[in-house]
Amino acid sequence: MAVGGVTGSGPGSPLGLHRVLAPAGVLPQAAWQLDPRPALWPDEVRVAVERLNLDAASFRQLREATGGAAADMRAEVGRIVAERGKMQNPVTGSGGMLTGVVEEAGPESPLGLAPGDRIATLVSLSLTPLVITDGLAGWDGRSEQVPCRGHAILFGRSIATVLPADLPGPLALAVLDVAGAPALTSRVVGQAARAAGPGTPPVVAVIGAGGKSGSLSAAAARAAGAGRVIGVVPARAEAAALRAAGLADEVVIADARDPVALAAAVRGAGGPAAVTVVCVDVPGCEGGAVLATADGGTVVFFSMATSFTAAALGAEGVAADVTMLIGNGYVPGHAQLALDLVRREPGVRGIFEARVSEETRGNRPGLEEK
Amino acid sequence: MAVGGVTGSGPGSPLGLHRVLAPAGVLPQAAWQLDPRPALWPDEVRVAVERLNLDAASFRQLREATGGAAADMRAEVGRIVAERGKMQNPVTGSGGMLTGVVEEAGPESPLGLAPGDRIATLVSLSLTPLVITDGLAGWDGRSEQVPCRGHAILFGRSIATVLPADLPGPLALAVLDVAGAPALTSRVVGQAARAAGPGTPPVVAVIGAGGKSGSLSAAAARAAGAGRVIGVVPARAEAAALRAAGLADEVVIADARDPVALAAAVRGAGGPAAVTVVCVDVPGCEGGAVLATADGGTVVFFSMATSFTAAALGAEGVAADVTMLIGNGYVPGHAQLALDLVRREPGVRGIFEARVSEETRGNRPGLEEK
Repeated sequence: MAVGGVTGSGPGSPLGLHRVLAPAGVLPQAAWQLDPRPALWPDEVRVAVERLNLDAASFRQLREATGGAAADMRAEVGRIVAERGKMQNPVTGSGGMLTGVVEEAGPESPLGLAPGDRIATLVSLSLTPLVITDGLAGWDGRSEQVPCRGHAILFGRSIATVLPADLPGPLALAVLDVAGAPALTSRVVGQAARAAGPGTPPVVAVIGAGGKSGSLSAAAARAAGAGRVIGVVPARAEAAALRAAGLADEVVIADARDPVALAAAVRGAGGPAAVTVVCVDVPGCEGGAVLATADGGTVVFFSMATSFTAAALGAEGVAADVTMLIGNGYVPGHAQLALDLVRREPGVRGIFEARVSEETRGNRPGLEEK
Repeated sequence: MAVGGVTGSGPGSPLGLHRVLAPAGVLPQAAWQLDPRPALWPDEVRVAVERLNLDAASFRQLREATGGAAADMRAEVGRIVAERGKMQNPVTGSGGMLTGVVEEAGPESPLGLAPGDRIATLVSLSLTPLVITDGLAGWDGRSEQVPCRGHAILFGRSIATVLPADLPGPLALAVLDVAGAPALTSRVVGQAARAAGPGTPPVVAVIGAGGKSGSLSAAAARAAGAGRVIGVVPARAEAAALRAAGLADEVVIADARDPVALAAAVRGAGGPAAVTVVCVDVPGCEGGAVLATADGGTVVFFSMATSFTAAALGAEGVAADVTMLIGNGYVPGHAQLALDLVRREPGVRGIFEARVSEETRGNRPGLEEK
């Protein structure tokens, strides 16, 4: 797999269209099959893969479908990648991200990467050409983090970031995985703060503030000028951890799927919110998020469990004049902003370290999965 | 069904929570079953129904499931409403709207309606308590417009509008059905125009500009300060009609599901767009809409066929810094804004009259459905 050399007949499409085998004309993410051969088009980069980080929904589906035995998990991921030329779970449609070392950068690549750089991709595995060469022999099938040898291809318009030297690898990976949320939260809260003026900084509610994207978003909201940050969590233990982390001015417990209870909890803590950020990955949170938000306010949905129609019809159904944003995983500068928050805020770092440690424990044979 | 009198034991919930029978604690839209009895809580309004306007997705599903014979269509709609206390298609989740005459307004109703007012509801049938009393005897099952006798209940926070005297009923109904799109388009384009300054008015692309919500959105974009309106339609006939209507500065033909073709068409017509408005009700338009939009621009998704994850992952996948909005069907003043556009713009009125006439022809026995 050390084959190199620029063999594309011209510059590649920055979107990777030249790697789409089927069906014709779609973007790589929508494609059934990509061409993952190692030879580069002039604007591409080839990465020697070290680790795949499967997305949570995909990992759960694979475990349920195969029963979770190591050999079966390895075989299933291997089969998908061999068939599709990328690790996109055919059931969930989702992928994940990867880390590795740059092997070769085409002469026209705009990504600024050089051989030897240790990087993480910030675009989904669901659109990244991939070949696995070690049969995933180092994976016990019990963790979303998959040791892996092989190569992956980055396009001209892909996004990748050099892994920071000052943070442990698993921590940095966990932060980069959710970096879009704090960046967009920062932008939206900053706009709201400027619109409101210095005397009345906006109230921000973060639903699921005890999690990874939630804790980062709470810290980003405060840094961007929030007047009061209300953190909503589902249970007492998480509330205690969030209080200890000091990331929210008020911490309240509510079931985000119960719209009346959620709205009452946020209002009782100083709401309604000018900006509500939804970071819980369960379906049915749209109505409560809308009701917790003030007229003229904004809801940002980061959860992949969000239903477009439930949000649209739900807001109409209660005559709520709220702006509803689809959380875009890409905001310029998002990786740096998220890593800086973790460096600067011990509360965020503590929550991440606890989560990463839990995930690592989940990797021990014999431990019950939660 | 002429039973009246205020019988609620206190003010109702403005959201209608007191009418939810099952499951407990959810909003009326998410409920399986509502209590549609005619006696009013003090802040409610009862309407004598004249016509249901089923939403297009629901009507299509009903026709396919029943085969479309009048007796079967009547029986199926009757069964749903008897069982659920509202006309919410259990398969599509969608409803529609209704017209009727106000029968009684509770003393604490904030809606400003009086008995005798002929109104249209602007909240979905999927959350409106409803009883049908005539077995839908006047409906031949061939049109989304369903003559109907019975009653419906409006809550304190429901939205309804008195039907205008100067426009034919079916035309007004068709306009009100999509009134959220031009109102939100007007707001977003107005913001973009102010941000850009007077010298560089924003380019606006309307995908599906030949349809009802699309033509209104194109007209609203121009009125709100768009510098150039690019209308995208799927076929020649529609392009000719849109050109004749004069609502777009450029009219281009492209398949909105083909991202590369759509982006190329918009760019070729003076794009990329600062604001892209998606009004086509087919799945798979997310990627093209993102690619057709300039960095820093905004995409507004009005189509109920929009996939939240496809939009979120799609934008990330091409590193597009675009703001993506979930089209909220409610914007204050939306009914008036939409009706005024139809009154003022002969091009919009022409497109609506042609569409309404097509739908009426679809109602004739023996005509092929398209």
